[in-house]
Amino acid sequence: MFQSFEDKADGSHGKARASALRAMFDPLGIDGFIVPRSDEHQGEYVPPSAERLAWLTGFTGSAGTAVVLAEKAAIFVDGRYTVQVRDQVDVSVFEPVFVIETPVSAWLRANAPDGARIGYDPWLMTRAQVRQIARALEAVGGEMVRIDANPIDALWQDRPGPPLAAAAEHPNDLAGRPVAEKLAEIRDAIREARADAAILTDPASVAWAFNIRGGDVPHTPLPLSFAILHADHRPALFIDGRKLSNALRDRLEDVADVLEPGVFRDALEALGRARRRVLYDPNGSSEAVAFFVEETGGAIVEGADPVALPKARKSAAEIAGTRRAHLRDGAAMVRFLAWLERAASDGTVTEIAAAERLETIRTEMAEADGVPLADIAFDTISSTGPNGAINHYRVTRRTDRALAPGDLYLVDSGAQYRDGTTDVTRTILVGSATPERLGLYRDRFTRVLKGMIAIATARFPKGTSGAQLDALARHALWQAGLDFDHGTGHGVGAYLSVHEGPQRLAKTGHTPLEPGMILSDEPGYYLPGDFGIRIENLIVVREAGAVPGGERPMLGFDTITLAPIDRRLIAPRLMNAAEIAWLDTYHMRVWGALSGWPGLTGDERAWLGAACRPIAG
Amino acid sequence: MFQSFEDKADGSHGKARASALRAMFDPLGIDGFIVPRSDEHQGEYVPPSAERLAWLTGFTGSAGTAVVLAEKAAIFVDGRYTVQVRDQVDVSVFEPVFVIETPVSAWLRANAPDGARIGYDPWLMTRAQVRQIARALEAVGGEMVRIDANPIDALWQDRPGPPLAAAAEHPNDLAGRPVAEKLAEIRDAIREARADAAILTDPASVAWAFNIRGGDVPHTPLPLSFAILHADHRPALFIDGRKLSNALRDRLEDVADVLEPGVFRDALEALGRARRRVLYDPNGSSEAVAFFVEETGGAIVEGADPVALPKARKSAAEIAGTRRAHLRDGAAMVRFLAWLERAASDGTVTEIAAAERLETIRTEMAEADGVPLADIAFDTISSTGPNGAINHYRVTRRTDRALAPGDLYLVDSGAQYRDGTTDVTRTILVGSATPERLGLYRDRFTRVLKGMIAIATARFPKGTSGAQLDALARHALWQAGLDFDHGTGHGVGAYLSVHEGPQRLAKTGHTPLEPGMILSDEPGYYLPGDFGIRIENLIVVREAGAVPGGERPMLGFDTITLAPIDRRLIAPRLMNAAEIAWLDTYHMRVWGALSGWPGLTGDERAWLGAACRPIAG
Repeated sequence: MFQSFEDKADGSHGKARASALRAMFDPLGIDGFIVPRSDEHQGEYVPPSAERLAWLTGFTGSAGTAVVLAEKAAIFVDGRYTVQVRDQVDVSVFEPVFVIETPVSAWLRANAPDGARIGYDPWLMTRAQVRQIARALEAVGGEMVRIDANPIDALWQDRPGPPLAAAAEHPNDLAGRPVAEKLAEIRDAIREARADAAILTDPASVAWAFNIRGGDVPHTPLPLSFAILHADHRPALFIDGRKLSNALRDRLEDVADVLEPGVFRDALEALGRARRRVLYDPNGSSEAVAFFVEETGGAIVEGADPVALPKARKSAAEIAGTRRAHLRDGAAMVRFLAWLERAASDGTVTEIAAAERLETIRTEMAEADGVPLADIAFDTISSTGPNGAINHYRVTRRTDRALAPGDLYLVDSGAQYRDGTTDVTRTILVGSATPERLGLYRDRFTRVLKGMIAIATARFPKGTSGAQLDALARHALWQAGLDFDHGTGHGVGAYLSVHEGPQRLAKTGHTPLEPGMILSDEPGYYLPGDFGIRIENLIVVREAGAVPGGERPMLGFDTITLAPIDRRLIAPRLMNAAEIAWLDTYHMRVWGALSGWPGLTGDERAWLGAACRPIAG
Repeated sequence: MFQSFEDKADGSHGKARASALRAMFDPLGIDGFIVPRSDEHQGEYVPPSAERLAWLTGFTGSAGTAVVLAEKAAIFVDGRYTVQVRDQVDVSVFEPVFVIETPVSAWLRANAPDGARIGYDPWLMTRAQVRQIARALEAVGGEMVRIDANPIDALWQDRPGPPLAAAAEHPNDLAGRPVAEKLAEIRDAIREARADAAILTDPASVAWAFNIRGGDVPHTPLPLSFAILHADHRPALFIDGRKLSNALRDRLEDVADVLEPGVFRDALEALGRARRRVLYDPNGSSEAVAFFVEETGGAIVEGADPVALPKARKSAAEIAGTRRAHLRDGAAMVRFLAWLERAASDGTVTEIAAAERLETIRTEMAEADGVPLADIAFDTISSTGPNGAINHYRVTRRTDRALAPGDLYLVDSGAQYRDGTTDVTRTILVGSATPERLGLYRDRFTRVLKGMIAIATARFPKGTSGAQLDALARHALWQAGLDFDHGTGHGVGAYLSVHEGPQRLAKTGHTPLEPGMILSDEPGYYLPGDFGIRIENLIVVREAGAVPGGERPMLGFDTITLAPIDRRLIAPRLMNAAEIAWLDTYHMRVWGALSGWPGLTGDERAWLGAACRPIAG
């Protein structure tokens, strides 16, 4: 199984470890130290060797930062983790702080002593992060202090070594574009930015540019690595040679110098000494990168990772592969949902059992289809009743609940196949509910569905960003005095990160949407302590067909996720004719695409037919 | 009359003046010079003495920048002025550049010679503007060069003196908050920003903080002035003493040191020498301000103008005054629209005649109501047929057209009364149109109206910004392949600027909306060369009433503009029941508020009754 349900948390060492860290302040000449949950690549998942925040505090969430001062310490988490942090961390040592209200910078401005020198590991923070905190410290006459050898690493006795999973070629028929063509496009972008070189520190960017995949972190096929791309000569790829077969090394050496990560810093300094102008992403890359270039005489040109946008615009082959992955994944969802309806109605299925079943079904379906399940795309959110209202819930043995008749079950899951990445959420009524409950569920579910459909059917002019569309997903909830506290959708990679930028349907999604971008469309509604609802499909941006009288080239979305939406939770009277037509057409598509899937049983096919019946007439 | 319809443009001196400017490059040690359309206050309107861009190029639009290099020159304008710039400017000297596609920085990066030294007047550009261009010049090894004495001023022989309109107190019963209370609020904001002082360079901010108004620029009651507010002692107000009566000076001296603008620079340098931390708005204030503070040893704390938000949140007295202003203004619109329907049907009324009539009616109505028309809030956009499709159209003797039967007439106008500022747009069918034309008009008009209603009826959680709501106004157009190329709404002041920030319904409106903010709600549709449609009401943000089952405190809008919307242009079949109910209720409100207005004739009242008939049943 790819998913574990154990409580990894152990916050009991927090006090001793914070003390040990504080003991190093004097020799390092600092008054505090920042421990983010990140590695040198600033990605969502980090290898065990980079779990410094968990080592120090016990906190295992996917985002967070600890700040240790001489007299106090705090751990900063977002809304997803306000409950979890109290479960995992010794809050007498690390005060939990809600980072949206009080960012690290604001907390330090209020809590750091005058003239405070706050240490940080420049490989673990971006320049934008360092700048923001430095500016806040200025207000108390303090400063940020670069610490080259992370004191945590000196204290952490049994720290694991770096991951060394084998890297593999990602073949052209799936990538759709040869490496040489991609590198040429990036070279043009570097020249366009009037730079001599660009630094890639995001392994997803490296993986895309060189058509390789790996397995160094959970749930995302990333080979941890760096690259330097030059405007005028061969790129350099920094990857541990132990991850490369001879064949792959030969192939990579055709297009790049292949070097060990240990010489990455030397290469940065060489750029500096050669007085190069180096494109660097202050929001995505380690401060250390910019520092070593500048310290040795180079110039930093700030700009976005030049791979981010080309990677986000999927090739035709990537879209075709992703569609195939969704057929396979949809068949797995059908088997799972059919099983769930039967098995859960008597209250004997637990969240963990359901998550295990789903992973097993995905494994079998993929195996039968000849495309093995490479990984799940993230820990399945398998949640029922009040657990469904906990954003980013991860079920453990301790929190596991049975799916009780009358409750809602929310399952958010995804898969990594070599032809594509999936991410789908369905909310299901377990057994039957009282009319009163059902009325409440239906009102909320239908408003969420209306929001999802509003995005799926939106037409919008070129240049429109996800931030502009986000309100369409919320309007039906807002009018009823309701809302949800997360973005409407995130970008999704093609056999890469399930959370990919810069495309995004959220307040912060300022990148214009472009054809080929894949996003999730997942509004929700959560009643704390009671239940949660979310419906999620993946959508691809495309050129919209012309409408009579239309004047402007518009974009729209194709929905690519294929799985029935629970008809029992829909109140048709809240929907308009166009919304009902969309839903019925969607269910017809799901039926058409999946009813003939090899291996579905007669019972499963019958279940699918019933689940896809039209609402209208 | 406040509005003139003359062509002020004279681009014939462009060549000679550009040459004269170039002749000064050598002595100044520069390779180019930037001439923005701005003064030391960075406002929308500038006094004649600051019309350097018009003097140099002939261009009289409200926004634009010229850049003169040795070999070439360009003038940068936005979409509103792409036609006008070609009419007014000698394009053989100044190449027109569409600034949205090619900002000054990008153009300089592409056109400035290597190592170019580009001169600028630091009083006429913000630090953000200077930074952006400086960064672009770095790419060619060039730099921005501060020029203390603007060379245009040396060349401009008959340059007018600065304006000296009398300033006046803005009484407490209209402002709603005494000066002392406002100053205390700003002092808290300065301390909150950990600064010792804040610089106000926007005269609207000064006017709000000190409860004064003036008349130094057209259409906005601004006294050109600066202020320095201190965290711990009396503020200093820099205003030409010739604008002050003895009584007003006494009153101001109760709360501030009143000084001449000539010593503003000295005061900035004194702050610097005292090592003060000075709050400065890099997006709204002259680079010179920050420079003089820093050069003399002070520190700049970058942040928004501390008055902007408190000013945007209108007091109860300001909202009450603005509502009174809208009653008066609505009565004027009724008289105007009733006259227009009668007078224009035979094709004898011209755009200028209509604009003159409207201004005359506003003057009479205000006079009769005992609150004189202080000014129009901007040059009335009085446009028919194809002129209606020209954004920001200003009618002149040369462009004037008769309102022809079958055409649409778009009138966007506003007034400055001492109790409030109005801004209203209506689009009217002149006479009658063929069924085919009418069908097209109705489709477009109704989609625009649906957008306006979607904003007017929106409910949204606290923290929502105008950028998030903007798409609601476009959705009905987008679905038909249509759009409009301007924001949906701007902030509006209370007897202050008709364009006020930071609140805004647009892609760029990232400030959360707060109760008391006034905005315009004005979607449109434009068919170039044929016709234009815009419908504009002003709206006030308020706490939304609870709805059954609602969970979150929501905000909503009250519509405060009172004028009928042309029923002949509506296609009810495109509207849903809630939209029709909103429209009918709105028209009932207009009738209820205005039918008893003193001075409306029986005919006008009858016209209003017909114009406000319900659409439904």
